[in-house]
Amino acid sequence: MVSDHLARKILQAAEELGYRRNPLAAGLRTRQTHTVGIVLPDLTNPVFPPIVRSAEHTLDAQGYTAVLADTGNRRRRERTIIDNMKSRRVDGLIIAAARRKDPVVDDCVELGIPLVLVNRTVDKHHVAAVINDDELGIELALTHLLDLGHRRIAYVGGPQNTSTGHRRYKSFIRLRQRFGLASERELAVNAVDYTETAGQTALSRMLASHRDFTAVLAANDLLALGCYDELRAHGLRCPDDISVTGYNDMPFVDRFDPPLTTLHIPRKVLGVQAAKILLERIRQPDAPIKQVRLEPRIVVRGSTAPP
Amino acid sequence: MVSDHLARKILQAAEELGYRRNPLAAGLRTRQTHTVGIVLPDLTNPVFPPIVRSAEHTLDAQGYTAVLADTGNRRRRERTIIDNMKSRRVDGLIIAAARRKDPVVDDCVELGIPLVLVNRTVDKHHVAAVINDDELGIELALTHLLDLGHRRIAYVGGPQNTSTGHRRYKSFIRLRQRFGLASERELAVNAVDYTETAGQTALSRMLASHRDFTAVLAANDLLALGCYDELRAHGLRCPDDISVTGYNDMPFVDRFDPPLTTLHIPRKVLGVQAAKILLERIRQPDAPIKQVRLEPRIVVRGSTAPP
Repeated sequence: MVSDHLARKILQAAEELGYRRNPLAAGLRTRQTHTVGIVLPDLTNPVFPPIVRSAEHTLDAQGYTAVLADTGNRRRRERTIIDNMKSRRVDGLIIAAARRKDPVVDDCVELGIPLVLVNRTVDKHHVAAVINDDELGIELALTHLLDLGHRRIAYVGGPQNTSTGHRRYKSFIRLRQRFGLASERELAVNAVDYTETAGQTALSRMLASHRDFTAVLAANDLLALGCYDELRAHGLRCPDDISVTGYNDMPFVDRFDPPLTTLHIPRKVLGVQAAKILLERIRQPDAPIKQVRLEPRIVVRGSTAPP
Repeated sequence: MVSDHLARKILQAAEELGYRRNPLAAGLRTRQTHTVGIVLPDLTNPVFPPIVRSAEHTLDAQGYTAVLADTGNRRRRERTIIDNMKSRRVDGLIIAAARRKDPVVDDCVELGIPLVLVNRTVDKHHVAAVINDDELGIELALTHLLDLGHRRIAYVGGPQNTSTGHRRYKSFIRLRQRFGLASERELAVNAVDYTETAGQTALSRMLASHRDFTAVLAANDLLALGCYDELRAHGLRCPDDISVTGYNDMPFVDRFDPPLTTLHIPRKVLGVQAAKILLERIRQPDAPIKQVRLEPRIVVRGSTAPP
């Protein structure tokens, strides 16, 4: 609408006057704020920061700022946070905190808010998502334990209201049957949260009834750490007495005593892909919805050994 | 302006209609958004999430929502983030990312934006802050090493553009003199960042010139982990060959191999106090500025032993 020359002069004058773009004011005109919300279920779980970091880098390179929020796994807080973000007109949301039935995600879908789920997904809707191949992960961990010679393998699962908790548990049960392994109900307990404490509680229930398993397959690294604690409390050594595997390969697990055998998920790719897909959805709301499933790989460390 | 009875009826009707408070709209009237920004220097450093978590709880209980941002230790990003938060009219800021000379903090002070610094502070201004007694921390670590019998003690410091890096280094140099310890310049190297890699680089410089120290006092836990890595790379064992101490007692350090002797900082109190002081500043902008200094305590674990 104005000549290039004039536009350059205006920009130069603005810079000299120290003018800074006001995203709210700009948002009133363009209806875009160039801000994206990232919602995490648990900021204290070290698996999330690297995912956030790589999403932020991708968003930043495209002129978008990320604001984060930590639900602390509380449903009410998730609702408050997302309502707050919506009313502040974020251009879109990356949600790592989704539950299988998630009224907040339902709302966003209904309202047409650009949205990408990361790490976890929901049961209904066809929602854009970047997740891990949970079935493959469990198969890799189980095969590793079988290769070492384990046959009585316990399972400490995650909360069943999350897609990761649910899919990993289903996979374990299915594979356990396929391989003809011990299948007592008590040998698979799902923890109520993805935390060390919940993992410890789950394993303590199993140790009370069945002491004859030689390995524990845990559905995430924090649960595996809880298993370390419970084994130590019973005077059992890992891996000498019982092997333990985790899921996520979160930062620092290679430094633990013993270093944890676990499933590495491509954290950077998760973050980058989530950001890219979200930016696509913001720019082309009617484009087909993308779901990306990334393959984990097993990282063998000191927490697993032959029985 | 309306009767209690009418007010109750209106609120009830609003609830029945599913009306939710729109913070932006409410903000236009009250000039308050009930949102607080929390700015972190490095989301991947596990010391910060528990501080954020306890600040969030305190804010939440008072009807405030926290939005977080991670600067990734990049100055430009810190500026962008805070500009963005200001233009979105956060009611105040909790900044954990302050540098000793910090133009962004200067701006906020000038503009009268309610502000609390946490963990780190700035050189000039009298700014509200909740920090640790860095001098006491270094004295506790050094005394512990002296009590074990160490006399040649190396120091791996933090970035000197942060108050923690600067104060801890000054304390070490002063105490080293007071106790009449070896004081070669090469025995104290400051890392460029608070990261494992920077800690490893700093220690490698020392190992190249002076191999005769028996302990390393590191200015934070990530630096101490970098020292673990460098010692291992040289075939040196901790604590058998060289003892290592950290600072922060961040989550998971008790699980490392060896578990890290470090300075525990009261993370919950840091977060709660920062939130409380900020809320006071928002409500009473003219009240006297509070600065709180919390005392660390030493936690002795497996990374320190007699020389």
